[in-house]
Amino acid sequence: MKQVKGGITAAKGFYAASTAAAIKYKDRKDMAMIFSKTPCKAAGTFTMNLVKAAPVKWDQKIVKDSRGVHAVVVNAGIANACTGQEGMDYCKETADYAAKLLDVPSDSICVASTGVIGMQLPMDRIKNGISVMVPELNDTLEAGHGASQAIMTTDTHEKEVAVQVELSGKTITIGGMCKGSGMIHPNMCTMLSFVTTDANISKELLEEALREDVKDTYNMISVDGDTSTNDTCLLLANGEAGNEEITEKNADYEAFVKALNFVNTTLAKEMAGDGEGATALFEVKVIHAKTKEQAKVLSKSVITSNLTKAAIYGHDANWGRILCAMGYSGAEFDPEQVDLYFGSENGEIKIIENGVALDYSEEEATKILSAKAVTATADIKMGEASATAWGCDLTYDYVKINADYRS
Amino acid sequence: MKQVKGGITAAKGFYAASTAAAIKYKDRKDMAMIFSKTPCKAAGTFTMNLVKAAPVKWDQKIVKDSRGVHAVVVNAGIANACTGQEGMDYCKETADYAAKLLDVPSDSICVASTGVIGMQLPMDRIKNGISVMVPELNDTLEAGHGASQAIMTTDTHEKEVAVQVELSGKTITIGGMCKGSGMIHPNMCTMLSFVTTDANISKELLEEALREDVKDTYNMISVDGDTSTNDTCLLLANGEAGNEEITEKNADYEAFVKALNFVNTTLAKEMAGDGEGATALFEVKVIHAKTKEQAKVLSKSVITSNLTKAAIYGHDANWGRILCAMGYSGAEFDPEQVDLYFGSENGEIKIIENGVALDYSEEEATKILSAKAVTATADIKMGEASATAWGCDLTYDYVKINADYRS
Repeated sequence: MKQVKGGITAAKGFYAASTAAAIKYKDRKDMAMIFSKTPCKAAGTFTMNLVKAAPVKWDQKIVKDSRGVHAVVVNAGIANACTGQEGMDYCKETADYAAKLLDVPSDSICVASTGVIGMQLPMDRIKNGISVMVPELNDTLEAGHGASQAIMTTDTHEKEVAVQVELSGKTITIGGMCKGSGMIHPNMCTMLSFVTTDANISKELLEEALREDVKDTYNMISVDGDTSTNDTCLLLANGEAGNEEITEKNADYEAFVKALNFVNTTLAKEMAGDGEGATALFEVKVIHAKTKEQAKVLSKSVITSNLTKAAIYGHDANWGRILCAMGYSGAEFDPEQVDLYFGSENGEIKIIENGVALDYSEEEATKILSAKAVTATADIKMGEASATAWGCDLTYDYVKINADYRS
Repeated sequence: MKQVKGGITAAKGFYAASTAAAIKYKDRKDMAMIFSKTPCKAAGTFTMNLVKAAPVKWDQKIVKDSRGVHAVVVNAGIANACTGQEGMDYCKETADYAAKLLDVPSDSICVASTGVIGMQLPMDRIKNGISVMVPELNDTLEAGHGASQAIMTTDTHEKEVAVQVELSGKTITIGGMCKGSGMIHPNMCTMLSFVTTDANISKELLEEALREDVKDTYNMISVDGDTSTNDTCLLLANGEAGNEEITEKNADYEAFVKALNFVNTTLAKEMAGDGEGATALFEVKVIHAKTKEQAKVLSKSVITSNLTKAAIYGHDANWGRILCAMGYSGAEFDPEQVDLYFGSENGEIKIIENGVALDYSEEEATKILSAKAVTATADIKMGEASATAWGCDLTYDYVKINADYRS
């Protein structure tokens, strides 16, 4: 497996475009489009929030019933959530309009929205945007990069990644892009993530690969504990790499899954590290757990603890808050058996042993916690399972961004 | 029932004292003591966090086994949590020392601590503090007030309340004090709350009254979603009011429970409104729910949503975040049936009807949300149950307080 440049257009046969459609933002790109001439097998995971945005409901149906997906139309600025029947009608109108210009069926078009809840989409501008993008669709890396910029809301930078892997002599590519960066506490999937691949794989295995992988990637990150109404991860496979179709869990499937995991892990970590207002990526590993589920519950409880997140912002080795968050997680463990370490590019330090503080150097701990990415590792000495969760620190800027009127 | 002045010394026969013992703070009171010559029946509810502070373990045993509680010794600054066997030994040493000076049995002394996790108590100063306080024990309201000041950590003001109620011709009094104001997301009880009463009531009914009441009071507040290691609520009844002992669920019991609920609700709301960095109390009511449990899950989900809390700080009627938080709560409801109102001393406004925004005045909504206490009411139109939860806004100061080194 090797990492290559690009994102959603890295795989063969995928085109992208983006434009400034003035949906809500002035002077910046806010619409993007992904297109494949070859119809794609599609897998999707979506928010578990009971309040689902209209595009989520639309895509769930498309992914389930469509004979093949050709395109995705995305806008930033307005989420099209809590918009009633009018919002649902706009999804159909968007798909119909794009389908006509692309000369493909309406039920081959997915839509995705991100932004303010409760506002209706300005359909004239959405249609103008589509009209501008269709003739500009391009399979260059630049076109994919433009799309990754257009879908951002409070993100501070675009997020894309691509890898290549050999499957029985053929090179296949998986590329993706995503955006955060508030209301991030995915349950089944993250806010908006789009992954494309030219691999030839059965729809069943494509769906299983995605469903299993989100559990260890997007579902292990949190920015603020708020599960969005719009969480969507779409995985499109057009088969243009020409590999023999993967129809069983053989070595090719394992290689595909490993590459997909790399793409999703990279995007998920990028999202956590670029959480609203964040100054640091906060990684929490729980090791030697009895079960993976136990390790997941414990690590997620720590990355969602406001007190711990504020301490990370302050570069304070406030280990008591970490033990406290593990304690209220609901998972069983013996607090008096826990060893805890902090680590970063600046070194590693053991802070507590068997639940009690060691005589560590606060100065050294602060230095370690001052890096852009810090890791807390809890050894709970119960078994062989482990899990990793990713969050970020809680900062003034998080409050500023979200207290500002209707962000 | 009528509210009267005072707190823990309002009921007959309760004495208090407080002192500056330099446990961790300089120049302020940081130790308090409650005392009753008559041994008290005691009820207690404690943190559900798996990581329990030493004083919690001590008090659980005392409340369960003691023939009568005479005193509580409290310190602020150090939590005596994650302190191993040494921390447990200090609870006994504290109780033994106080018992000797008070001439009562060791197992009639409860202890409570609040503050930093992981540090050991300076026992010489704890003992000095007790030596100073014992001769100063007094049943004046001022003595109780001093105690309510001494137990504060990041609280901005002391919290006490008292009520009187007639039970079969005798007046009984219930008074209490508590402290917050971070790591507040009680599960079974709040951080530290002490309630005293001169009512004569059986231990069984005292315990049941407290156990049931915390579910609607302390367990319905949250400041930051972090369930503390030290949550403790102690209810002491010395029977000095001389009423006929309450041994069954008669009218006297109902009157007692109602008065207890008033005391606990008042203290719980005070704690939420004085949450770390808070500028406003944020009350969320869910009405017309199918079950009370459903209403509780929904209302608690909203008050713990960081995004909603930040919007309240910004006086922004960002109702989409409220619906979103209800949606990921895990409770079932129909988003397209929800009506939502905002209210405060500045008026009331209906924001959404059947899940879709009304054409309300943003200016009026902002005015309503600019009050010191704001209420969001969600009508979910499913039945007759309701619940109320109390939280606060998320502010720069919350981050400041908790990012500052080892608060």
